[in-house]
Amino acid sequence: MYSAESQLTKALPKMAQKASNPQLKQGFEQHLKQTQNQYSRLERVFKEVGESAKAKTCKAMEGMVKEGEEWMSESAAPEVMDAGLIACAQKVEHYEIATYGCLITWAQQLDFSDDTIALLKQNMAEEKETDEKLTQLAENMINQRAAAGK
Amino acid sequence: MYSAESQLTKALPKMAQKASNPQLKQGFEQHLKQTQNQYSRLERVFKEVGESAKAKTCKAMEGMVKEGEEWMSESAAPEVMDAGLIACAQKVEHYEIATYGCLITWAQQLDFSDDTIALLKQNMAEEKETDEKLTQLAENMINQRAAAGK
Repeated sequence: MYSAESQLTKALPKMAQKASNPQLKQGFEQHLKQTQNQYSRLERVFKEVGESAKAKTCKAMEGMVKEGEEWMSESAAPEVMDAGLIACAQKVEHYEIATYGCLITWAQQLDFSDDTIALLKQNMAEEKETDEKLTQLAENMINQRAAAGK
Repeated sequence: MYSAESQLTKALPKMAQKASNPQLKQGFEQHLKQTQNQYSRLERVFKEVGESAKAKTCKAMEGMVKEGEEWMSESAAPEVMDAGLIACAQKVEHYEIATYGCLITWAQQLDFSDDTIALLKQNMAEEKETDEKLTQLAENMINQRAAAGK
């Protein structure tokens, strides 16, 4: 996750730039700040368990970022581009939710302190919140489109 | 997803072989059969929308499979190996849930037939069921371990 969050801090500004819908653009910018905080929390987790913070390249995130870049290089109508960006982001969020879920379970099994577990839970909660916002945004965009008779 | 499910049909037998917990082993074997059916359902989706079934390599799944292989090449106690296998599988399931979620939304927007959407929904439901089973299995394994005083 340390590698995954780091990769994401580089991908999100590009996604924000590419998004047309103002709420989506703002959402990516906001999630960038969250991701930077999440990265710092992971550093604290490493510190609290007495390990040095060393990233092992997360190949799954690497794949998701590459696919996102491929999508952003396509020429598509703004609303289609946005729908694809939301899909890319939701894949990432779900991947992170699954991974934090495992990390929290293992941290509990390994008797990590409540403070350490709380850091992981905070990251997890933010990812879930982001995923829900993306779903809402996707639904709003569909409704707006329907209202416009498209 | 056509590429992702295909990659998964090759990864699951290795995961089943590597698993020690009999329920986990059986779960992977059962999900292999499901995955083969899901792959066939996707072929039907392609057919019903008049497209030829052509896979574009899913790089995210490629990354997840590679990470799974790396994990399986580690030497770890059976229960630790199993916990890692569950984590790998849950990342995959969440990734698939997010992706089918997007596909279903798009299929509805693009007015695909109810039959076509039902195929995607069936795949989605199986992925969710598998994810829940994996969570239950992980929790049971922890409880058993606790009961054994480990």
